Amino acid sequence: MKKLVPFAAAVLALAPFAYADDASDAARTYRQANEARIIGDFVSLLSMPNVATNKADMDVNAEWITAYLTSRGFMSETVSAGGAPYIIAERKVPGATKTLLIYAHFDGQPVQEEEWASPPFTPTLRDGMVVNGAKVLDMQEALAGTINPEWRLYARSAGDDKAPIIAVAAALDALDKAGIAPSANIKLLLDGEEEQGNPTLEAVLAAHKGKLDADILLFCDGPMHQSRQRQLVFGVRGTTEVQITTYGAERPLHSGHYGSWAPSPISDLSRLVASMSKEDGTLTVKGIDKGLRPVTKAEKAAIAAMPNIDDKLKADLALGRTLGNGQRVEESVMKPALIVTGFNAGGTGDRASNTVVPRATAAINFRLAPGQTPESVREAIDSHIQAQGFFLTEEEPTADVRRAHAKVAKVQWGSGYPAFRTDLDSPATRKLIGLLDGIDGEATLLTPTMGGSLPIHIFSTAMPTMPIVILPVANHDNNQHGENENMRIQNLWDAIEIYATVIAGYGK
Amino acid sequence: MKKLVPFAAAVLALAPFAYADDASDAARTYRQANEARIIGDFVSLLSMPNVATNKADMDVNAEWITAYLTSRGFMSETVSAGGAPYIIAERKVPGATKTLLIYAHFDGQPVQEEEWASPPFTPTLRDGMVVNGAKVLDMQEALAGTINPEWRLYARSAGDDKAPIIAVAAALDALDKAGIAPSANIKLLLDGEEEQGNPTLEAVLAAHKGKLDADILLFCDGPMHQSRQRQLVFGVRGTTEVQITTYGAERPLHSGHYGSWAPSPISDLSRLVASMSKEDGTLTVKGIDKGLRPVTKAEKAAIAAMPNIDDKLKADLALGRTLGNGQRVEESVMKPALIVTGFNAGGTGDRASNTVVPRATAAINFRLAPGQTPESVREAIDSHIQAQGFFLTEEEPTADVRRAHAKVAKVQWGSGYPAFRTDLDSPATRKLIGLLDGIDGEATLLTPTMGGSLPIHIFSTAMPTMPIVILPVANHDNNQHGENENMRIQNLWDAIEIYATVIAGYGK
Repeated sequence: MKKLVPFAAAVLALAPFAYADDASDAARTYRQANEARIIGDFVSLLSMPNVATNKADMDVNAEWITAYLTSRGFMSETVSAGGAPYIIAERKVPGATKTLLIYAHFDGQPVQEEEWASPPFTPTLRDGMVVNGAKVLDMQEALAGTINPEWRLYARSAGDDKAPIIAVAAALDALDKAGIAPSANIKLLLDGEEEQGNPTLEAVLAAHKGKLDADILLFCDGPMHQSRQRQLVFGVRGTTEVQITTYGAERPLHSGHYGSWAPSPISDLSRLVASMSKEDGTLTVKGIDKGLRPVTKAEKAAIAAMPNIDDKLKADLALGRTLGNGQRVEESVMKPALIVTGFNAGGTGDRASNTVVPRATAAINFRLAPGQTPESVREAIDSHIQAQGFFLTEEEPTADVRRAHAKVAKVQWGSGYPAFRTDLDSPATRKLIGLLDGIDGEATLLTPTMGGSLPIHIFSTAMPTMPIVILPVANHDNNQHGENENMRIQNLWDAIEIYATVIAGYGK
Repeated sequence: MKKLVPFAAAVLALAPFAYADDASDAARTYRQANEARIIGDFVSLLSMPNVATNKADMDVNAEWITAYLTSRGFMSETVSAGGAPYIIAERKVPGATKTLLIYAHFDGQPVQEEEWASPPFTPTLRDGMVVNGAKVLDMQEALAGTINPEWRLYARSAGDDKAPIIAVAAALDALDKAGIAPSANIKLLLDGEEEQGNPTLEAVLAAHKGKLDADILLFCDGPMHQSRQRQLVFGVRGTTEVQITTYGAERPLHSGHYGSWAPSPISDLSRLVASMSKEDGTLTVKGIDKGLRPVTKAEKAAIAAMPNIDDKLKADLALGRTLGNGQRVEESVMKPALIVTGFNAGGTGDRASNTVVPRATAAINFRLAPGQTPESVREAIDSHIQAQGFFLTEEEPTADVRRAHAKVAKVQWGSGYPAFRTDLDSPATRKLIGLLDGIDGEATLLTPTMGGSLPIHIFSTAMPTMPIVILPVANHDNNQHGENENMRIQNLWDAIEIYATVIAGYGK
């Protein structure tokens, strides 16, 4: 479904930019001549284990990346605030008045190697997806011949999130080779502890934010849209979570002798969970929407301009209904959500037993929209639980506490952070959108927010005036976090053209 | 709380029976002179493993029991209908016009030996309860000295249900020794597969019920009342069970990207479970009470005459409320109950993950009151689930079925059987109650029904005119079915007096 009029132009009434033919053509030409070498570099980077809890591994990665960047004219330093390393690098461009800051992370999720079809740190080329029975290609032989862009490279962090490092370097190599000067200074912030929840990011930013000043932050993480169209994302949802435990008798009871008389904590918890939302997903917790920022006209228009994938998704996922009374998936993520992710009590299946169990626990994940905070959600949920008649405690209740209250709920909150959204329509974002649309005349999808969460609020808090836009480059089906994580080769090629275009054009 | 006027007399306006002093005195005298021998016999019987799935083990038990009975004047035969053995035995009494049929079972629940404080088939004497830190007694030394009736003998089936075999034999020995003739023929039906759900009982009864004709069946199984007062139970609840699985997307989904749009099967199942009962336990399933037999005046009076243990139970179990708006536990079991015994989906605790899960399963146990049948309960629940908007299937739904219906529930019913209740006030039961009250002038508790279930309907169907009364002899805290099952010695002594009294008096 090709469209010659860019969506972005339609949505934001932008004046069309000249196509950035020079830079993207240069990137394509260079890439076509160097495919084996680029993939070879990516294989080298992916061969290094990168679970951030192993700092020695992360240092090995940081050294490799530093060498890779400095050979391309970057000044690079590795910093830390007691956690895994972060790399801050800059390539200054003489005369440039603008600065691009590109973020990516080089750590990866822990691996369960036995689940993988090939070892996660032995990058493996396949001619497609593992789930479709793709066959393993001999690396040397494959790179010596014609490389099919539908091949995929399998390794931890192939999709999440080492590819931007390789693609930015290749883009600079291409521009250098073609004699096209970058139009802006290029700064990189490469994160070594993203998958660990960035315990030291705030401290790192506090110490080094002066070095990160820029006109725009391109946050290069996350999967692209399922349609494979180029995409910019202007926000993320916040997140927080809670586990709620309800109580029955202190010990398991025979369901026949006591089940008519002793309350079932499973029934109590079911009623509590059921009280929080309606069948269509509408939240029924008073005050949970407090402070919620309304969806803007530009955001609504951007969503309307996106290809509607609902029917395909429903069929793929074997769903007979969706929440939100027909609201499409992109629109649904503009709202807060309460997702019950776990409920465990007693036995089912072969482990069923005729027992009134002593306790039941549910895990609930909240996704926050702009305006909400973890604190405001917590306050609303705690009040709701109390309004349902529960005595609320954060600790395991003693027998005396349980005797004293008709219903007791242990409520354990996890950490959380707020949502983030950048204005869809600002000079900084208009410029970026125009450049991307200019690559091939295809419209870049403008997604007001992704449904998932990233701690971008840490950046926006530290550097409040800098526009932050998410520019994902990995295929949507990259299996991030799971086994058989992969990068589709065409996505890597596209990323090189995107970076070359932005680097060549942003400062003009 | 001793009462000199028997409850039974008060409840049923019975003419007081003469105290059966002779028989119970004879039993006590004989027992006091033979305690070590009686316990020794019990130890021998309990030393034989008796999980009914091992038929060779059950045959060993049956041979031992047969020898034990034939040496006391019983004619005994071991029968089977393809399952574990049953023993049918009779001791005819010259001139007797009445016949007592006593039921017990000699098989036991499977054991998880690692959970036991001492091996389940190495009977072990302790000076109290394991949970209270009771110490193991040297068997030989203990039996040679004064035996404390608060000691307990630990072994599988000590409480459930080999004791009646030893106690009936000791009662007959005591009467023989005292020269008191039994007043009735004594028949025994000893069941070798009760804990396996009696798969062949119907066939055994069909083949042999002619040999089991009697004026009353004493069903000697189950624990006594928590107050330790002597007890007769006139009914059991029926039982059936169902597992319900609800569905979301075909695969786990990221809760951020899809949780606002894809339904959570946990929320759907919570709503379904919550729709079936109110917080006070009242069932809200239309038609589930269909055919329910009302509670009789005599049953209400019997419950009112029982010691009220609710406050103590609530304190012991650390409960802050009970179901039924203050209805006491004995009254609560007169009603049908729906107990959600399990609910499992996704991860909680350390295994929590931000995922919209593909399915959620709940296990529900129903306890049936007289008038209900497993079929009537199933019909009501199936209709209720459909009325909540679910497409109902017994099989794992295909992707097409899930696509075609907004909500799908897989509903898997287990087997079940109806309740059973004998009239509290019949000539046969009056006679029995009078004899028991006569032992010591203490009232026998008359419990209209136990909350638990036994397949007594199989007996009442095969032998519809015979009154069936449950006469439990094991201590209530015998840990039946679990680890460290035990029999309190005093309960064994009391059982001997009870059997001697009934055997000596019932035919008079």
